[in-house]
Amino acid sequence: MTIYEIITKKKHNVELSTEEINWVVAGFTSGSIPDYQMSALLMAVCFCSLSDRETVDLTMAMARSGDMIKPETGGFNVDKHSTGGVGDKTTLIVAPIAAACGVFVPKMSGRGLGHTGGTIDKLESIPGFSTELPYEKFIENVRKIGLAVAGQTGSLVPADKKIYALRNATATVDSIPLICSSIMSKKLATGADGIVLDVKVGDGAFMKNTADAEKLAEAMVRVGRLAGRKCTAVLTNMEKPLGRAVGNSLEVIEAIEALKGNAPDDLREVSLALAAEMLFTAGKGTSEECFAMSEKAVSSGAALEKLREMIMLQGGDPAVIDDYGLFAQAEHTKEIFAAEDGFITGISCEATGMISLRLGAGRQTKESEIDPTAGIVFDKTVGDKVRKGDRLAVLYTSSDCDFEEISKDFGKVFSYGTKENCPKEKNVIKIIKGY
Amino acid sequence: MTIYEIITKKKHNVELSTEEINWVVAGFTSGSIPDYQMSALLMAVCFCSLSDRETVDLTMAMARSGDMIKPETGGFNVDKHSTGGVGDKTTLIVAPIAAACGVFVPKMSGRGLGHTGGTIDKLESIPGFSTELPYEKFIENVRKIGLAVAGQTGSLVPADKKIYALRNATATVDSIPLICSSIMSKKLATGADGIVLDVKVGDGAFMKNTADAEKLAEAMVRVGRLAGRKCTAVLTNMEKPLGRAVGNSLEVIEAIEALKGNAPDDLREVSLALAAEMLFTAGKGTSEECFAMSEKAVSSGAALEKLREMIMLQGGDPAVIDDYGLFAQAEHTKEIFAAEDGFITGISCEATGMISLRLGAGRQTKESEIDPTAGIVFDKTVGDKVRKGDRLAVLYTSSDCDFEEISKDFGKVFSYGTKENCPKEKNVIKIIKGY
Repeated sequence: MTIYEIITKKKHNVELSTEEINWVVAGFTSGSIPDYQMSALLMAVCFCSLSDRETVDLTMAMARSGDMIKPETGGFNVDKHSTGGVGDKTTLIVAPIAAACGVFVPKMSGRGLGHTGGTIDKLESIPGFSTELPYEKFIENVRKIGLAVAGQTGSLVPADKKIYALRNATATVDSIPLICSSIMSKKLATGADGIVLDVKVGDGAFMKNTADAEKLAEAMVRVGRLAGRKCTAVLTNMEKPLGRAVGNSLEVIEAIEALKGNAPDDLREVSLALAAEMLFTAGKGTSEECFAMSEKAVSSGAALEKLREMIMLQGGDPAVIDDYGLFAQAEHTKEIFAAEDGFITGISCEATGMISLRLGAGRQTKESEIDPTAGIVFDKTVGDKVRKGDRLAVLYTSSDCDFEEISKDFGKVFSYGTKENCPKEKNVIKIIKGY
Repeated sequence: MTIYEIITKKKHNVELSTEEINWVVAGFTSGSIPDYQMSALLMAVCFCSLSDRETVDLTMAMARSGDMIKPETGGFNVDKHSTGGVGDKTTLIVAPIAAACGVFVPKMSGRGLGHTGGTIDKLESIPGFSTELPYEKFIENVRKIGLAVAGQTGSLVPADKKIYALRNATATVDSIPLICSSIMSKKLATGADGIVLDVKVGDGAFMKNTADAEKLAEAMVRVGRLAGRKCTAVLTNMEKPLGRAVGNSLEVIEAIEALKGNAPDDLREVSLALAAEMLFTAGKGTSEECFAMSEKAVSSGAALEKLREMIMLQGGDPAVIDDYGLFAQAEHTKEIFAAEDGFITGISCEATGMISLRLGAGRQTKESEIDPTAGIVFDKTVGDKVRKGDRLAVLYTSSDCDFEEISKDFGKVFSYGTKENCPKEKNVIKIIKGY
């Protein structure tokens, strides 16, 4: 077996054997297969794709490249993953709902690069909150309250770290089997019994259309099933930012409001759909029953209580739930007003993300520090009628950024038109159950 | 401009600009673009190909990556290049013919890996012959006798050396624009006014069928024309080894015999076609006139005289021309006899090349030493009727190889059948003139 032969096979669209895939993943992880041969193979995969069997084999081989965790919480562990979008704070909402309904959610999250921080960064905007939990403490917390969020350890799925870095440098990111293996290898290695995947669709997502999103979703649930996990994918709309807040503490506040029953429609629908699937996955009832249980966990205040418990157990100040003034406050704010009359027909995710990054909410490089106060809160959303001079949004920052310039560029975020031009996409597009 | 954007463009089959191609070649040659990004780009080129314009730009950028030579011989310089085949000793025949007809042939050759050595290795099997000529001496020899053969210097086309090594490790060799740019960048950098390309077609060649060979030939003559050179491609048959001898001194002896008028049909036809095109390229007459001049250079002994002069000027012993006993003699020989009655319907180039390599005629690694005495001389060829026990060939070696094992495997070289099964391919398939 040589890497040259394997590249040649894939280039000629020949299926690789399980043995060959295991050999490639092990060799690349250990360094015996150099980057330049792996990148040629990855590019060939972008053109020729992988069969279902190859995708499963690749995912399993990647999952096994490092530690395989099996969180001994004594319950059914459910994980939830999002393919990434702007304003996506659903983990902060659905994890407490699921825990309130008796599902265990031992959540390991990354920081990552992006227009805002990851779940970890968002939670760390709560004064005192720590995600650096020793593994035993992490499990103990889940046993106690059903819920804990910790940063990922270094020894999980090293193959994915190396392959992802290479894909990111060689324009080989947009291959469905490669995306599937990257996401699912991490889910399998962290040992969830149930996995709910939020596959975002639209301009602000990696998958630009429903057809591609379905393909990815189906590939992932198939891998999950073959690996013996309960797995469901929910396709959700990402043509505009989710909810009204984009940032770190700003999104935590919006999540708290959602758990108080005050979520904007899109955020509520997406969160309840995801939470319901987490319960369904754990065998808590039919989809309808699970949806009703999720709604009740919010209306009864039980989910908010779970969030409060988690904040306390992880060293945070739970009083932030009742007094948002306890979050660090942005040093500078700026109101943005409508430049014309009309209907808002679009809010660009890409432009929003870029503005958010420039305000300091995200990391431009791995070393960048996040400004927890930075971000955007929208007053108006897609479909709203506005008059010139109406306030559209407020920008927040404590960073040393060019606030004037950013405010000007913020105009590009909005599109205007007539009522007929306003899109009517569903917030929850489709649910694909893998079992 | 970033390499990421350029890979993305090519991956989506978008034409790259001249500026982008120049930037990639310069960046990869200097090392600022790493191997793993270049190999991803090369793989994308294998799938999406390059336009004519991109191919010319790539070739020119590669040619300019190192020194550009313009041999000041005072005459019209013609170069001849073969895409490589088994038993290909035509340079040793056509260069003296062309020189005898007044064309200047300043020939720079490589050693290369392969089943036999390159032209340089073959010539060095002549006692005393040196190809390590200082550049001034090389030019002086061409001015004096119209002909010199020297090893390539290190500073020519460094981009090709780096790109070729990477292609060779990443299964990105079989792309027509990449093959074209590799060959033609070297021809352009060595400053030939006329270029004759021998594009081999068949099982023993890189191009397995006429259609692909034509595509490559047309790409190369197009690049030659756009670079202002006279360029012609000759498609020749490589379904079986060319001539009867495979090896280093064995091929030199066959070339000398050819210049004495004793070439086997296939070798004579291919050599005269190539020599005639070299003369045509130099404006020596019509194709028919040039062919007749080439024939006459052989029958008059003028071409053999040119070879003798070259051997003398490069330190070799010209007496080898009349006494082949002056070459180093193989320590071991073995006769191979027909195992059955019938017609020889095929001689496998691949199997022949492999046997030749195992006998010591070629290099397995860059560091391998060549055995100048090793090789094969065929008594019988495709189309011949043989009876069981007839001698088919003689194997030669002075190397420490497993002669018995090799002799047994040599049986695989031949296919037998009826007279009707014998192929009737033309030796010279097509001539493609680029101007």
